[in-house]
Amino acid sequence: MSIQLLVAEMKKLLGSLDACLDKAVAHAQAKKFDADTLLQARLAPDMLPLVRQIQFACDQAKYAAARGAGKDVPSHPDEEKTIAECKARIAKVVTYLETFTAADFADIETRTVSLPRWEGKSMRAIDYVIEHAMPNFFFHVTTAYALLRHNGVDIGKRDFLGKLSMQ
Amino acid sequence: MSIQLLVAEMKKLLGSLDACLDKAVAHAQAKKFDADTLLQARLAPDMLPLVRQIQFACDQAKYAAARGAGKDVPSHPDEEKTIAECKARIAKVVTYLETFTAADFADIETRTVSLPRWEGKSMRAIDYVIEHAMPNFFFHVTTAYALLRHNGVDIGKRDFLGKLSMQ
Repeated sequence: MSIQLLVAEMKKLLGSLDACLDKAVAHAQAKKFDADTLLQARLAPDMLPLVRQIQFACDQAKYAAARGAGKDVPSHPDEEKTIAECKARIAKVVTYLETFTAADFADIETRTVSLPRWEGKSMRAIDYVIEHAMPNFFFHVTTAYALLRHNGVDIGKRDFLGKLSMQ
Repeated sequence: MSIQLLVAEMKKLLGSLDACLDKAVAHAQAKKFDADTLLQARLAPDMLPLVRQIQFACDQAKYAAARGAGKDVPSHPDEEKTIAECKARIAKVVTYLETFTAADFADIETRTVSLPRWEGKSMRAIDYVIEHAMPNFFFHVTTAYALLRHNGVDIGKRDFLGKLSMQ
């Protein structure tokens, strides 16, 4: 199996997140409140608000692809203030993920990844994706979903999983 | 890469969930409330309570390994009423996941999986794991984490990710 399948799954779930944000906007319009206030919602006072959960989900998908393939990571500053801007950030990452092919990950089991804060330590690129970027991605995308659900947005598990490759 | 790495990651995160439940019990003792009341906590009235999130996380990890390998899925009835029983359920699944090796997933890209509710449709076993069991697993394990966090349990991202394979 190629890590490309995991990247494709992350891309799909970013699409799910984008669609959930559309439903959040519709919910806010029906209830007559400003949808962008949702971006500051938190599940606990010391947890990150929705806008940061979205930014982190975007970043972890980008990190998985770029570092899994040994490429430089494109910079996306955390400047989003509105749901429209969050959707643009998601679209940018989805477009970026689409540039990867299975061949980009050919040496993922032998190459290593190291980050400045790891103080000289490293991980195999495959372990970095499986143990770090991927669970982080799911953590933030699920927490974003939970925040919307907790705030009354009408979404369900199917909105999260998206369309399955059924035959 | 073998799907075995994903199964190992799920096994690790079930261990994280188990450790988060220990912290939930310690939190309840410090605050002098019955820890098992947390099992009925929900993030929204029409979302599943913590006990079901734990059961679903256990099941999805089990499904990923068993169906990914083309084996029968062991039955674990949803009868847990206490955190101690949830921890026993987690331990049972962790022990089950430990029986798998990379060789069990050798034909995952050619074999198919079909469930009764899919009405005759099927998925490649690899697609089932990547698009269905794995995101479902992360969805429920993250929601369990979010429920504990939302209820004041002192856990952080490191408790979720667990130990990384650093060199």
